[in-house]
Amino acid sequence: MIHTEQFLKDWNEHSEIGKVPGTNGVDRQAGTEADREQRHWLSAKLSSYGFRVEYDAIGNQFGLLELCPGAPYVLLGSHLDSQPTAGKYDGAYGVLAAMHACREAKRSFSDGEVSPNYNLAVVNWFNEEGSRFKPSMMGSSVFTGKLGLDDALHTRDQTGDSVGEALTAMGQIGTFSLSNVAAYAEIHVQQGRSMERDGIKIGLVTATWAAHKLEFLVKGEQAHSGAAAMEDRRDALLAAARLIVAARELTDAFEAGILHTACGEIHIYPNSPVVVASEARLLIDLRSPDPEIIAAAYNKLQLAIREIEVSERVSFSITHEHRWSQQPYPSSGVALARQLAASLGLSHAEILTVAGHDSTNMNDVVPTIMLFVPSKDGISHNLNEYTSEADMIDGLRHLTRVAETLAVHGSQWSQWE
Amino acid sequence: MIHTEQFLKDWNEHSEIGKVPGTNGVDRQAGTEADREQRHWLSAKLSSYGFRVEYDAIGNQFGLLELCPGAPYVLLGSHLDSQPTAGKYDGAYGVLAAMHACREAKRSFSDGEVSPNYNLAVVNWFNEEGSRFKPSMMGSSVFTGKLGLDDALHTRDQTGDSVGEALTAMGQIGTFSLSNVAAYAEIHVQQGRSMERDGIKIGLVTATWAAHKLEFLVKGEQAHSGAAAMEDRRDALLAAARLIVAARELTDAFEAGILHTACGEIHIYPNSPVVVASEARLLIDLRSPDPEIIAAAYNKLQLAIREIEVSERVSFSITHEHRWSQQPYPSSGVALARQLAASLGLSHAEILTVAGHDSTNMNDVVPTIMLFVPSKDGISHNLNEYTSEADMIDGLRHLTRVAETLAVHGSQWSQWE
Repeated sequence: MIHTEQFLKDWNEHSEIGKVPGTNGVDRQAGTEADREQRHWLSAKLSSYGFRVEYDAIGNQFGLLELCPGAPYVLLGSHLDSQPTAGKYDGAYGVLAAMHACREAKRSFSDGEVSPNYNLAVVNWFNEEGSRFKPSMMGSSVFTGKLGLDDALHTRDQTGDSVGEALTAMGQIGTFSLSNVAAYAEIHVQQGRSMERDGIKIGLVTATWAAHKLEFLVKGEQAHSGAAAMEDRRDALLAAARLIVAARELTDAFEAGILHTACGEIHIYPNSPVVVASEARLLIDLRSPDPEIIAAAYNKLQLAIREIEVSERVSFSITHEHRWSQQPYPSSGVALARQLAASLGLSHAEILTVAGHDSTNMNDVVPTIMLFVPSKDGISHNLNEYTSEADMIDGLRHLTRVAETLAVHGSQWSQWE
Repeated sequence: MIHTEQFLKDWNEHSEIGKVPGTNGVDRQAGTEADREQRHWLSAKLSSYGFRVEYDAIGNQFGLLELCPGAPYVLLGSHLDSQPTAGKYDGAYGVLAAMHACREAKRSFSDGEVSPNYNLAVVNWFNEEGSRFKPSMMGSSVFTGKLGLDDALHTRDQTGDSVGEALTAMGQIGTFSLSNVAAYAEIHVQQGRSMERDGIKIGLVTATWAAHKLEFLVKGEQAHSGAAAMEDRRDALLAAARLIVAARELTDAFEAGILHTACGEIHIYPNSPVVVASEARLLIDLRSPDPEIIAAAYNKLQLAIREIEVSERVSFSITHEHRWSQQPYPSSGVALARQLAASLGLSHAEILTVAGHDSTNMNDVVPTIMLFVPSKDGISHNLNEYTSEADMIDGLRHLTRVAETLAVHGSQWSQWE
């Protein structure tokens, strides 16, 4: 039995933190005052529910429930941080659902019929969004050894403040290390519209789309934007604009929906109304369920870049890139989640995630289950993101059963396949 | 006789202020520490040459030479402020040449053969470049009544500091008012390559190109840049990129060289790698010697915008615009400058200015003469901007004769036509 009232009470309390006035959304970027506030709120809440609160060296926040002293932990969580002017569900739902699922699982064991073989823990990963401090998924990347702790702590925002300084100022840095994790589970809003359209309550995430993220530096030459002859210009912003358009047009060359491309961030120098830009930095994102589509799109993009280099007399270089192939979640975990959904009478379907999640990192190091609840109109990274209370409660019911099952069986999931 | 050594000594001294390390260029944006430093330098230099230094309420810096007590002033000058990472000639050459031309003119009158009927003054206009504080040509716009003083003083930079605060902090704000100006003259580097190509030493500027400057706000909708379906997106950055490309392609629809277009500045919100931008602000510049070409280009741009609004499901609005037709300088002043150049044996030619100058403002309220010296390869708003010492000296010789002539004849130029 789920204490839905307490979950919704906590949810509504938390939703006030970092609220953008006059909207339903929030601004809770990692390392900001709103993030400090929500982390203190979570810490108090976890303590009141009997969790022991700990922080590791990159500010990941853990709530530990010891059910079976000395045993490994089953970890559930997501992230509380948000994009600027974002929805209140993205990440936060997963953390609050994890807290209540663990709490309910502990309660269910107290009747003594089944005994847990594992401990339970909740995690609020630091800086999943990567808007103030890059890269995204910072906390889980350090936790899983993909990003060095020192590199992460020395990352600076646009004003020169470092992650280490921000965490210290928040009082959200510690020395705890959760080394013995048997399995990980995360629940998240879909960030797509298919579940809502198809009437699906529980999304059983089978894999993450492949992705290739590219950070470009375009070098041109400063000139007077009025006086310089058009043929003398080497305009880095114009070249960047052509690349942004070319990236969008890539998707027309493939089957509809099989390739997503985007540019969400650009920086120009000197960014003055009367100066032809000498420099542009921009991020281009290629995503597809099929890594071969990404490779083909990347090749087309390279051809477009060569043409722009010639026409605009600029140079492009790739300053950072990050790519991953389609990453499947364990099929046994999908099967386990499917049977639990069926036993609860919740409609369910296999689904891919286009966006990366902290579970994308965790999935590389421990058996991981990733779950979705519906999101209205697929709106995400937007103040108007919305998931109904009923859908949140259905997800919590399911995640609670996952927590109970994993606390007994750890990652021994083959019986469900 | 020109004291070329003193001019070059002053020139080299001033060129060290705000120097960008390891380059030949400078960063002396209006209202910054480098601007404060160069203004104090100019003040000391003017005082040492016998000018009386005064500041008006928008920080225009004047050096007054009283030759004929009670008479109106003939004003010569330009601006010391620069773009970020800019050349050291743009503006600064005109101020230093004006100072030395007035000084030499005063000396030439001291032999008593000819008597001046006007006083002479040098001006360093505040914030011609408009990079930190918009709009450009701020000081001369307030001086000529085109921009309200309070509006100018309350203009804020990206960090929220106001013009009034910056001027007060620099100690460069005063109560002086130069109300009685008979004529204005300005000398500037060309910011184009035709004079160098044609071996011309003195450019006789006959008119300013027409221009239409447009500031657009593009409104789209935030979304997850990976997960949102392509057809669901309303991408303000993509729409802005399409507009930048469309503005460039406008020039292909007209005779080569007759239309210049540019976008040098763009601001994106939220400018995050994983968020489709909901907002873009960008400035598009249309310039031509022929206002009908600008009108035709503007109409084509509007068509392009309607197409982008439909294809990207965004809205464009114009938040600011500023336009001017081709603005002729008085032909009698051009004739006067031509005859003085001929008398000095300096090659000369009529020329248009594409860029706006403080003289563009002054030309609307007093008889104005605008002069150019050559600029290597037409490079401007660039650290590598270059004009030779010989060309600067030739310009100074010419401007000195202009100062002498105007000090005698004020704006009575019809005898030269």
